[in-house]
Amino acid sequence: MIDINCDAGESFGRWTLGDEEAIFPYVTSVNIACGFHAGDPWQIQQTIKRALRFGLRIGAHPSYPDLVGFGRRSMHVSAEELAALVLYQVAALKGMVEVLGGKLTHVKPHGALYNDSAQNPEIAEIIAQAVYQISPDLILYGLSESASIIGGENAGLQVWSEVFADRTYEANGTLSSRNWAGSVLADEWAIRQQVQGFLAKSPIKTRTGEMIHLTGDTICLHADSPNAKDMAYWIHDEVTSFQQP
Amino acid sequence: MIDINCDAGESFGRWTLGDEEAIFPYVTSVNIACGFHAGDPWQIQQTIKRALRFGLRIGAHPSYPDLVGFGRRSMHVSAEELAALVLYQVAALKGMVEVLGGKLTHVKPHGALYNDSAQNPEIAEIIAQAVYQISPDLILYGLSESASIIGGENAGLQVWSEVFADRTYEANGTLSSRNWAGSVLADEWAIRQQVQGFLAKSPIKTRTGEMIHLTGDTICLHADSPNAKDMAYWIHDEVTSFQQP
Amino acid sequence: MIDINCDAGESFGRWTLGDEEAIFPYVTSVNIACGFHAGDPWQIQQTIKRALRFGLRIGAHPSYPDLVGFGRRSMHVSAEELAALVLYQVAALKGMVEVLGGKLTHVKPHGALYNDSAQNPEIAEIIAQAVYQISPDLILYGLSESASIIGGENAGLQVWSEVFADRTYEANGTLSSRNWAGSVLADEWAIRQQVQGFLAKSPIKTRTGEMIHLTGDTICLHADSPNAKDMAYWIHDEVTSFQQP
Amino acid sequence: MIDINCDAGESFGRWTLGDEEAIFPYVTSVNIACGFHAGDPWQIQQTIKRALRFGLRIGAHPSYPDLVGFGRRSMHVSAEELAALVLYQVAALKGMVEVLGGKLTHVKPHGALYNDSAQNPEIAEIIAQAVYQISPDLILYGLSESASIIGGENAGLQVWSEVFADRTYEANGTLSSRNWAGSVLADEWAIRQQVQGFLAKSPIKTRTGEMIHLTGDTICLHADSPNAKDMAYWIHDEVTSFQQP
Repeated sequence: MIDINCDAGESFGRWTLGDEEAIFPYVTSVNIACGFHAGDPWQIQQTIKRALRFGLRIGAHPSYPDLVGFGRRSMHVSAEELAALVLYQVAALKGMVEVLGGKLTHVKPHGALYNDSAQNPEIAEIIAQAVYQISPDLILYGLSESASIIGGENAGLQVWSEVFADRTYEANGTLSSRNWAGSVLADEWAIRQQVQGFLAKSPIKTRTGEMIHLTGDTICLHADSPNAKDMAYWIHDEVTSFQQP
Repeated sequence: MIDINCDAGESFGRWTLGDEEAIFPYVTSVNIACGFHAGDPWQIQQTIKRALRFGLRIGAHPSYPDLVGFGRRSMHVSAEELAALVLYQVAALKGMVEVLGGKLTHVKPHGALYNDSAQNPEIAEIIAQAVYQISPDLILYGLSESASIIGGENAGLQVWSEVFADRTYEANGTLSSRNWAGSVLADEWAIRQQVQGFLAKSPIKTRTGEMIHLTGDTICLHADSPNAKDMAYWIHDEVTSFQQP
Repeated sequence: MIDINCDAGESFGRWTLGDEEAIFPYVTSVNIACGFHAGDPWQIQQTIKRALRFGLRIGAHPSYPDLVGFGRRSMHVSAEELAALVLYQVAALKGMVEVLGGKLTHVKPHGALYNDSAQNPEIAEIIAQAVYQISPDLILYGLSESASIIGGENAGLQVWSEVFADRTYEANGTLSSRNWAGSVLADEWAIRQQVQGFLAKSPIKTRTGEMIHLTGDTICLHADSPNAKDMAYWIHDEVTSFQQP
Repeated sequence: MIDINCDAGESFGRWTLGDEEAIFPYVTSVNIACGFHAGDPWQIQQTIKRALRFGLRIGAHPSYPDLVGFGRRSMHVSAEELAALVLYQVAALKGMVEVLGGKLTHVKPHGALYNDSAQNPEIAEIIAQAVYQISPDLILYGLSESASIIGGENAGLQVWSEVFADRTYEANGTLSSRNWAGSVLADEWAIRQQVQGFLAKSPIKTRTGEMIHLTGDTICLHADSPNAKDMAYWIHDEVTSFQQP
């Protein structure tokens, strides 16, 4: 069974982002913002309650400290600062989830921190060790075939390889840059096709036509894309159909 | 044995506040900022390590979200928001302390949140319940003879009544306003005298001369006052002398 | 001719608030957030450009420093701090407008600062003097019949009395609390009727039925209310119809 | 006559940075933080008043938006965002200075923005054009022999080349990295010697012994270095001695 995850809790004060009531029925796990790129404590708590109501796996979604940039800009932080950033955010989420009767199941770094972790083994290692220190039972979500996965495994964590249903891949297994024409999939058939590949653990077609194999434990759903609800339905439909042969 | 506590972890990024190496030898517990009035994750972590090195009790020092105002301004927040604010901050601290091998022992609200809790039973109750939800083993520090103490007891928490060595009291047991001449004590003898009163559980002299009894489980040391080191020495000296009869 | 104003520039980073393209056709002036309750520099600049494109009067909308609370919570600030807060925000807006070839025409305090100014003559005076110091040509928008108007006049500023088309008033000229049933108008006829009263400078009916006279130089349009576009149309329609007899 | 500049206004809320009363007697211009890496409106205003009292040139010191990182981390911002960031901050400072009866004389980017401007011609150009748009009379301070200088000249601004008395240079005219042993000068004689070179417009000795010529219109004084007061005295002494032959 493959997991479907989406980011959540990304409202802040007066500002709302994402339609969680519409998306949560189609996912199996959520990554909740921890206050550094989005999410004030009250919004975080509301999202935790909602995730519990839908019976979802709940993860922490830590970020660089950058509210106005929504955590999408890489920031130079020392190894010690990075570890502290992750510990603080994951600990806050874990404590809030437990008070509400749930259990924190995983951690997925957000935005630039996710990308930096995928590309930089040192960053991947620091994040993974911080997560392990909070609890060895936490699962680390990271980009499939990236440094994040190796970092998590080296730290002794269970890791889940994340794949994307709405993005093409290059022949070397990396995500195609959004700058390439056709790298963002919007077509229902193409998206369903890619999800079927992940489910069957069969090769998927890259942007340039080669067939490659990717490990896919969890599929990312971009909850804030314009056609998020359609995408959510297609992916969920493929996953549940596959499981009921 | 009476506790001596001081606020700590109140640096932020480039800015340093307080000389923790100089003060920590004289206190037995510290209240560490949680990022909302001061304290970034790295500074918080450094202070936790220092407190562990000195063998101190470590508490969380949650605040209203007001960095530029240092948490000293009361802010209207709903009951739900207040609970979430406290949960988030205490959970973050607790997790970080545990990762470093320590144990969170107590919670003391900061600044305007401390004052609001002392005066407003509803606020006191919300804070106390949030602390209890994090862990029933946490001790709540609150202003002696105030709503904070009642709120903590009603929530089922152990509460420690906080008293001040460098401030006079009114006949009704409240702290004298700083606007009154003589309400802030700086004289060594007066301060030592007041500490002796707390230690002996004997009445202390109010600003206007009446003798009143105050419960005092922990004495607050203002670590950022100009004569903090002298004060620290006097208070510590009285407390340790009293314990060795 | 009566002015119709709305708040604008209240997006922040990744978060969008209000549909300015839909609302700007119906208003004659906008109050642009200055970064303290909403509005990052880029969003501010986009809104200034849009306001210039629609040929609107452009005002600054300064606030207490409270992003997560959207400037809706009163905060204790000293007189000097308050003056500095207003100077900083209005100066930033004024400079940006001028670089884009426009001219700052007015200032309207936001949220809790607006309310505090309406009720507290000292706060009204400090704000008005700060605005005057930036430029004596700026018009101050304030709640009709409130301390804000007197403060502005005393400072030597031109003041515009703001009235609300979608709220009832009390017999003493103050806005009815939202807690009173019927104090928020949503009915087209009632809103049009109230606007006609402002236009004709004739008495309007209070919540409890008395007829009172209110000075109304500018009508506030709540651009983020659910029926903002309908409201905008009704108010604009009344104002332009009245001017074409 | 050569200018001596230092950064100022870098306190924030409860946190104080730098001893302006001690340093201002030795400098001729100050670069005042604009709120994005340090400086709340009240602190900014206090520093402007102090600078006026000492008769100093007053400049704006804009930064990337990064309070916890003190503006020392490079952040990816789009060209439009960068322009807006600079406009907002310089406009705020300019307006506040003018209200207090002064005149903004210059702009010096802070921290990572200063470094990025020195190395990246596109960033230098955007900053320079934004400054020019605020006022063509503003002087741009930039690292001597860097892209900042060319950018400023291309935009039509007067530019002042900044040199450092307490840092060595490489043979190609760039500042030596702090990682090189001996790159930070602390010795009185070496510092005085380097200042004399700048004053006489004669070659200075690089870290590796070559003699190079550097344009120096203004000398930077690091007001927050441990020996800032001594440094300030030595530099000021050399500059004033040189001017009184």
